Amino acid sequence: MKQVEFSLSRWMDGSGPETDMVLSSRVRVARNLKGHSFSCLASNEQTAEVLGKVRSTIDDIVELKNFTFWMMEDLTELEKQALVEKHLVSPLLARESKHGALLLREDEAVSLMINEEDHLRLQVILPGLQLEEAWREADYYDSLLEKELEYAFDENYGYLTACPTNVGTGLRVSVMLHLPALIITRQINRLLGALSQVGLAIRGLYGEGSEIIGNLVQISNQVTLGHSEDEIIGNLGGMIRQVIEQEQNARQALLDKKRAQLADKAWRSLGLLKYAQVMSSQEAIQLISDLRLGYDLGLIKTINHRLLNELLVLIRPACLQLLAHRELTESERNLERPVQIKEALARYM
Amino acid sequence: MKQVEFSLSRWMDGSGPETDMVLSSRVRVARNLKGHSFSCLASNEQTAEVLGKVRSTIDDIVELKNFTFWMMEDLTELEKQALVEKHLVSPLLARESKHGALLLREDEAVSLMINEEDHLRLQVILPGLQLEEAWREADYYDSLLEKELEYAFDENYGYLTACPTNVGTGLRVSVMLHLPALIITRQINRLLGALSQVGLAIRGLYGEGSEIIGNLVQISNQVTLGHSEDEIIGNLGGMIRQVIEQEQNARQALLDKKRAQLADKAWRSLGLLKYAQVMSSQEAIQLISDLRLGYDLGLIKTINHRLLNELLVLIRPACLQLLAHRELTESERNLERPVQIKEALARYM
Repeated sequence: MKQVEFSLSRWMDGSGPETDMVLSSRVRVARNLKGHSFSCLASNEQTAEVLGKVRSTIDDIVELKNFTFWMMEDLTELEKQALVEKHLVSPLLARESKHGALLLREDEAVSLMINEEDHLRLQVILPGLQLEEAWREADYYDSLLEKELEYAFDENYGYLTACPTNVGTGLRVSVMLHLPALIITRQINRLLGALSQVGLAIRGLYGEGSEIIGNLVQISNQVTLGHSEDEIIGNLGGMIRQVIEQEQNARQALLDKKRAQLADKAWRSLGLLKYAQVMSSQEAIQLISDLRLGYDLGLIKTINHRLLNELLVLIRPACLQLLAHRELTESERNLERPVQIKEALARYM
Repeated sequence: MKQVEFSLSRWMDGSGPETDMVLSSRVRVARNLKGHSFSCLASNEQTAEVLGKVRSTIDDIVELKNFTFWMMEDLTELEKQALVEKHLVSPLLARESKHGALLLREDEAVSLMINEEDHLRLQVILPGLQLEEAWREADYYDSLLEKELEYAFDENYGYLTACPTNVGTGLRVSVMLHLPALIITRQINRLLGALSQVGLAIRGLYGEGSEIIGNLVQISNQVTLGHSEDEIIGNLGGMIRQVIEQEQNARQALLDKKRAQLADKAWRSLGLLKYAQVMSSQEAIQLISDLRLGYDLGLIKTINHRLLNELLVLIRPACLQLLAHRELTESERNLERPVQIKEALARYM
């Protein structure tokens, strides 16, 4: 079995439109097999049956030949946690691994969770603002699977899912944004209020229930029923463009008023990332944010988005341990983190 | 006339004993000319007369040929302030320049103020703990002058001075110490209490009335009467050795308990000194102190005391402006300071 190693996901390459504010765009579709109980209600045998059916289908699809297949139960806690940190596996699948599995494309842009809340959850993550592209890619793989598997589908409701909030398109679309200027100037609260009024959910870096840290905000649709996929994606895209415009204006205002302080903050962050010997992930995420803002404002030029994205992932607890090739306590991680940060900086600078 | 430029004083070279705790040792003798009113009581003419007499004596002494002579009135405010920051001129002489003058040896280890509170104040500053050596050097130049000038001297009291606290030996001996461990662990207060009970004065970096910043403490004798020069120097030296021992113990205890945190603080300080774009002198002095402690504990090796001493002086407002060759407002200085710090670091690292 292939080991889970620390690797760079496609979204981290820093390409794509609007990368000065949008880190990544994510599309996820939930699907279930007709005639099989939803995972939460299914017996051990029934879940095994779903897995078997999906597995043999996957094996037959030539377009999935280069994907890697992992059984959750074969992975260590650390490997599973690293996949969670990279948003390739949900916390639920990592926790309850009963016949759970992951199928992952080499560039980590496309992944399929098996026996999560739904039988299948197909996900595409692309760099920058690329909702349509991510949807096209998801639709492509979804169609490949749908040719071979009969999905639970209702003429009135659409795709049936374990949780009613996913019924219909089964589509969840989200964008990870870096909004330091709106947060520094406290304009964010008004904006978040407006977004949730139009049915969008706003979360922190680690999804549902997570705080906003490092000025990173995840915005996603809540409604999956009653709109077509294109409408859902178009609506979210439109809102994201408005958020981007507001962040842009807030950044320009900050730059006009506080250029020297922003440059100072960005360069100090780089200095601390390069020289600190002990660092929590919380602090690292904040420093990376300050550095990113400095770069995006043109106040510091020797770095790039790829480096910033890589830093943002490698500082996370499990990824850090994968990189170090050993298990680490929290205080050991706080010592290892600066080592890995320095190595990453040295690779790029 | 030779311009005052930013230059390195001998004490800054980082040589001498105990440089991990003692930055410099300073000896100052106060002398007045017999038959001339003390400066504070003297008329303009009388002060001019003192200056004339001293000046012509200096001109005749071959051992003073390589010294530079400056009239205070010929110096700009900035030049005077830089000399004050380097402890080569007192704030009083810089402020009230009536026939005030300075004679300075090229290495800035020996200086003579003319028409300060006393007619003559001869000062020697050496690196590290070198009280006896500084006294020998001061005594040497004092004897040269005494051969040509008749000092105000009383068989009972000794040398007469404008302020009674200097009468007798006219000797003030002080040591500039770096005591971070005693300050971090709050043992300093008990120590300072004990020192003042035995008649020693404790001050900050900028002398009388100045706060302790950057963990720098100046300890000096208060009593000039009733003890010989050797006794005064021996007493102070003995106390300083006790302080050094206590700081040594406090450092070892800190190192045993908080090695990683101390290394982190030192390296972060270096990172900020290298990368910040805006910095106050207050912050710079603190960072230099943290860096010095890290170096003295062996936690960071790529620097040296010479660099640390140079940094400690060049970050001061007037020295900074001399280095930049222009007058700067406070906020301009906060931008210029990091530039000069970076240049100094680049010279050494």
